[in-house]
Amino acid sequence: AMIAFLPGDGVGPEVADAAKRVLEAAAKKFSLTLDFKDCFFGGAAIDACGDPFPSETKEACLGADAIFLGAIGGPKWDKAKRRPEAGLLEMRKALGVYANLRPVSVAGGMEHLSPLREARVKGVDMLIVRELTGGMYFGDRTEGDDRATDECLYTKEEVTRVARIAFEAARKRKGRVASVDKANVLATSRLWRNAVNELHAAEYKDVELSHMLVDAMAMKLIQAPAEYDVILTENLFGDILSDEASVLSGSIGLAPSASLGDGTRGLFEPIHGSAPDIAGQGKANPAGAIMSAAMLLRYSLNEGAAADAIEAAVSKALASGRGTGDIGGEDNTASFTDAVVELI
Amino acid sequence: AMIAFLPGDGVGPEVADAAKRVLEAAAKKFSLTLDFKDCFFGGAAIDACGDPFPSETKEACLGADAIFLGAIGGPKWDKAKRRPEAGLLEMRKALGVYANLRPVSVAGGMEHLSPLREARVKGVDMLIVRELTGGMYFGDRTEGDDRATDECLYTKEEVTRVARIAFEAARKRKGRVASVDKANVLATSRLWRNAVNELHAAEYKDVELSHMLVDAMAMKLIQAPAEYDVILTENLFGDILSDEASVLSGSIGLAPSASLGDGTRGLFEPIHGSAPDIAGQGKANPAGAIMSAAMLLRYSLNEGAAADAIEAAVSKALASGRGTGDIGGEDNTASFTDAVVELI
Ligand SMILES: CC(C)[C@H](C(=O)O)[C@@H](O)C(=O)O
Ligand SMILES: CC(C)[C@H](C(=O)O)[C@@H](O)C(=O)O
Repeated sequence: AMIAFLPGDGVGPEVADAAKRVLEAAAKKFSLTLDFKDCFFGGAAIDACGDPFPSETKEACLGADAIFLGAIGGPKWDKAKRRPEAGLLEMRKALGVYANLRPVSVAGGMEHLSPLREARVKGVDMLIVRELTGGMYFGDRTEGDDRATDECLYTKEEVTRVARIAFEAARKRKGRVASVDKANVLATSRLWRNAVNELHAAEYKDVELSHMLVDAMAMKLIQAPAEYDVILTENLFGDILSDEASVLSGSIGLAPSASLGDGTRGLFEPIHGSAPDIAGQGKANPAGAIMSAAMLLRYSLNEGAAADAIEAAVSKALASGRGTGDIGGEDNTASFTDAVVELI
Repeated sequence: AMIAFLPGDGVGPEVADAAKRVLEAAAKKFSLTLDFKDCFFGGAAIDACGDPFPSETKEACLGADAIFLGAIGGPKWDKAKRRPEAGLLEMRKALGVYANLRPVSVAGGMEHLSPLREARVKGVDMLIVRELTGGMYFGDRTEGDDRATDECLYTKEEVTRVARIAFEAARKRKGRVASVDKANVLATSRLWRNAVNELHAAEYKDVELSHMLVDAMAMKLIQAPAEYDVILTENLFGDILSDEASVLSGSIGLAPSASLGDGTRGLFEPIHGSAPDIAGQGKANPAGAIMSAAMLLRYSLNEGAAADAIEAAVSKALASGRGTGDIGGEDNTASFTDAVVELI
């Protein structure tokens, strides 16, 4: 299988390298053939050719079975004509990956890593399904010195297709979906709620559906995070809530993500950013990137056994006290990766 | 002084009654003359006359020195032509209260109430300044069966005036402002950041200013909430972040708010909603409403000493173990209020 490999900026190359080493170990063990095609992306691509998402990278991504991304962005490119982030949004749209899956769980015995009291995070195991190619991220904008606007636009079809992913995921999990919106204020949220209700009534009555306002969910994620199974929401709310949820497990460095569309081709990246302050120091936690690589095997290559092996190895390493500084461990990026590779 | 008094819906009347009793006790002690004018508002006003913000209520509010609001909304009015929330937004706009002040603090000795580990919330003392009359809440909308839009609009002037409130507040506190936006994606956020920087450079160089992305702040509020002094942000982000922050102290029921404009007339309300599930049962925590009443005395009536007395009484009551069920106490709404009244 062909994997477009985009290390990106900051700690991106370090964690991407860790993920690649783990993928190679899994490939060996499970006799998979993985071809990596390295591509410039983000700030690194701006430096190399003035464009965060160059056409060669785009072609490689569209021709690949899966795309792996480290992280992008940094103060260096804040004043760039097209910023690294613009490249990421263009890529998500070009790949048609409208559903961003962000699992957050706290494994039994790992509750001590959480900033929340142990009893609150016991049993946390949720999947945030964030709409990824619509909303304020892709609406029309006007930008002036004295006045600016951003438009949030959703069509029913955009809501229905991502809601379907959430309902399907719930069927394989605990059978519950909490849909999050701001229907007491926003028109797009009322459309969202109606479309989710309609799909639920027509095809997913076996799944338990509830609706929450985004401000209430921001509280509930701290007060009672173990209550939730699948959380479905639009792009901007998903950005905020998934980052909030990611720290429940102790560090955003542990959190993976998969972005999927209608086919099997997906984009896989850790949730954390490029963390320029610690780049190049070997301090970055590679666990989120490694777990993203496991999702790549599961969702795009249909190699569930290899994915399970990687996830089990990461869990075992963490449970035995291995880990980088962000979770209070003594490892650096490479030594934690060594531990995972050995356990596969 | 004339106070327009709007009990509203759900637990609103219960907590508003508690606040009124405490205001009356403070008035007695400090020889203030307070006239309360009861008005219909929200769902109660829809039931009474079909409009969540009737013109008599509007006149009373515009003619008052301050407005006190309990809480509004509930499933009963979800299908109303104009929902209770529409009345609240219209009121905020009509009063011109563009700055919503939401203090969140964890008093020494009260850390055990927090869902976060005690060490994380030790010393938390922040003030969220939320822009309240602009952004997505007041933009143009289109609403159809297959497609909906909401517009977010900000002018530089709207940003500057609320930023000024944040800088002024910081000068009286620890001298730091963290401004929150999503400048890596949104045009309105870039306008926001530029306007805040410009005002800072021109008039508030003595205040330490930093910028944070909204997704990062959603994490930081859990990871290191004690780092923040004043947090300044736009309307929708402020809605989400202030609700998130409010649970740090243990319950949203403890959190007060003040909404101010250019004059002294303000709108004061607890942050919590109408909580229809516990309405009429005497279970609601009146502390947020009572602390909002203290803010009313301080900001609209310039009665700082009376405000201090109320705040001290609430702190003392909580510190002595008094409190409603949401914070693990044995009190009902009335008995906790009795305790506060006695301490004044
Ligand atoms: C880098 C940024 C544009 C991006 C987003 O907001 O979607 C990031 O925060 C994320 O969550 O993947
Ligand atoms: C009731 C609702 C419209 C309101 C808001 O979103 O502003 C509430 O959540 C608040 O924070 O005061």
